[in-house]
Amino acid sequence: METFKAHLNKFITVSDDEFTSIFSFFQLVEVKKKENLMSEDDVCKFKYFVLKGCLRKFFINEKGVEQTTEFAIENWWLADNFAFEQREKTKFNIQAVEKATVMMIDCQSQELLLEKHPIMERYFRMIYQRAYSAAEKRIRYLYEMSKEEYYIHFSTLYPWFIQRIPQYLLASFLGFTPEYLSEIRAKLRS
Amino acid sequence: METFKAHLNKFITVSDDEFTSIFSFFQLVEVKKKENLMSEDDVCKFKYFVLKGCLRKFFINEKGVEQTTEFAIENWWLADNFAFEQREKTKFNIQAVEKATVMMIDCQSQELLLEKHPIMERYFRMIYQRAYSAAEKRIRYLYEMSKEEYYIHFSTLYPWFIQRIPQYLLASFLGFTPEYLSEIRAKLRS
Repeated sequence: METFKAHLNKFITVSDDEFTSIFSFFQLVEVKKKENLMSEDDVCKFKYFVLKGCLRKFFINEKGVEQTTEFAIENWWLADNFAFEQREKTKFNIQAVEKATVMMIDCQSQELLLEKHPIMERYFRMIYQRAYSAAEKRIRYLYEMSKEEYYIHFSTLYPWFIQRIPQYLLASFLGFTPEYLSEIRAKLRS
Repeated sequence: METFKAHLNKFITVSDDEFTSIFSFFQLVEVKKKENLMSEDDVCKFKYFVLKGCLRKFFINEKGVEQTTEFAIENWWLADNFAFEQREKTKFNIQAVEKATVMMIDCQSQELLLEKHPIMERYFRMIYQRAYSAAEKRIRYLYEMSKEEYYIHFSTLYPWFIQRIPQYLLASFLGFTPEYLSEIRAKLRS
């Protein structure tokens, strides 16, 4: 609870009473490592905020291989935003990479939250603005960089993240085979 | 002015007086075809909303080739959101594809606008939420589809857009050479 309060206070100012009310719109859930919070073809009901641990979002590609498209660690949101907003079936899975403590909110509760606490419009506006900025950057990298360059870029920016995530998931996120990732790492070490 | 009002009313409800005040925070600008609104290495001061015409965002890649990453037609925003928020130098260019009428707002005016009209937090939250959803989808396509599949997908979803945009810009957006785009189009016609 304190984690989320500290996070909110980076963007907006809320009193203790307001925070208690805001927090009441969310559900808390504990997930085990490798447990799915959301599975392909489920109607997408929730979006998730990580209090502790790590989640990933992935889809199964044509070849039956899991393709990770996003990770979320402490203080990050993870969702299929399109399906959430449209209340549609999702084409993604959300799974715990590590045992995790997660807050979740459904679309209707979010609307009620925003109605009661319009300051949360500002919070979510800032969150989405940043998420969109990051996505714009990522799209540029996907145009501009080779897979190897993207790995070097990524590991320079987020060395602690590279340490934290299992290598086969990192390979999946980067669009590598695990073998190719090992090769690049060996090459960079030498 | 009426265009923007109709657009706003799809997301929020504003009175005539409120709208007049909201509109006063923006500057109006007319741009000629191929004119730049923003150039690489400029400090990014504005974000842009297209009232009429078409803009594109591009960068110059290592080979000196223009790489288009986004288009914006009527009722779309276009910006380097990261540089805008950080008030940094941009690494993108924004240029008119067609003669255009554009509204623009700087970061400070946006803050004043949001302070005076908090309902605009809701508007921008929804705009960024949708933009982020679209970016999530696009990132998935970049993982999942070959360039040819992406072209087919894109032209099925937006046939009117394919007609409107010069072919060499469409090729640049899709990461093709213009020659390769002609080949795919010929193949699909046959």
